[in-house]
Amino acid sequence: MSGQENISESVQADFLKKNTEYAATFRDGDLPLPPARHALVLACMDARLHVEKVLGIKNGECHCVRNAGGRASDDALRSIAISQRLLGTKEVHIIHHTDCGMLTFTNQQLATKIREDLGVDVGDRDFLPFLDLRESVLDDIRTIRESPLVATGTKVHGYIYEVETGKLKVVE
Amino acid sequence: MSGQENISESVQADFLKKNTEYAATFRDGDLPLPPARHALVLACMDARLHVEKVLGIKNGECHCVRNAGGRASDDALRSIAISQRLLGTKEVHIIHHTDCGMLTFTNQQLATKIREDLGVDVGDRDFLPFLDLRESVLDDIRTIRESPLVATGTKVHGYIYEVETGKLKVVE
Repeated sequence: MSGQENISESVQADFLKKNTEYAATFRDGDLPLPPARHALVLACMDARLHVEKVLGIKNGECHCVRNAGGRASDDALRSIAISQRLLGTKEVHIIHHTDCGMLTFTNQQLATKIREDLGVDVGDRDFLPFLDLRESVLDDIRTIRESPLVATGTKVHGYIYEVETGKLKVVE
Repeated sequence: MSGQENISESVQADFLKKNTEYAATFRDGDLPLPPARHALVLACMDARLHVEKVLGIKNGECHCVRNAGGRASDDALRSIAISQRLLGTKEVHIIHHTDCGMLTFTNQQLATKIREDLGVDVGDRDFLPFLDLRESVLDDIRTIRESPLVATGTKVHGYIYEVETGKLKVVE
């Protein structure tokens, strides 16, 4: 058995142990499928941004979509369309954050690293990095507002989360 | 002012109020960018699945990618590639769940609804619904393992979360 297998089994074992504790006091088994607050949060995958805790969201209240950067990717638009058309959400809250990994590379640099590490040529694939935090939030607000998959008039709010302070700042 | 604007402002006001409370006791401002447990969780956006709480994940431990279904979409693979190549994660944990909205529609039905509601023709776009929960987890494990963007030998684990009981079951 390799060291990596040991580490991996240890994470899984810990998830299952912690989940047993969670389930032991679980009382939310009758919550309905549609989000109670009719809202969807789109946020970065960053390990320091526990979305529901940072926003005080209760179980069953909001959809939560996350990816590298919290970008309004084509797949995020798929999720928003399903959320709005089938499950009744009516607004989107986008959260990017300080010290984001997406500020640290260009597409060309990542393509080079993938070629060196994995031997794969990704061509001109866009990994959606950005240079400016506020601009990336505004870009993603615009992308969602202009998407044909998103209902006209959908309220789209943007924020920057500060990983250093725990504070959420509105982007206007 | 429309009713929708009132609802939307109320959600934002509540997020900001709750965040002020969160930030008041925040003590994790010095956590590093790379996830401490070298793991990424890929889970559904469902409002009843608060990933970090369900798995007992602490601040800074794991990347968390979420979308409609918790699918190994092309954008999820983008996030995994960034997570692995730039931030050192080495394993993926996929979580789908009971009572998932993705079990309730076909691509054709959603395309019809989008045409009726929004006046947009989405053609044969795949919204990644599924018919069987266990099969969808196994499909996504396979997609990640076979992706050229993912390091060979990456451990990929699958789970079904029961929204009725709070319990996580391993898919094998």
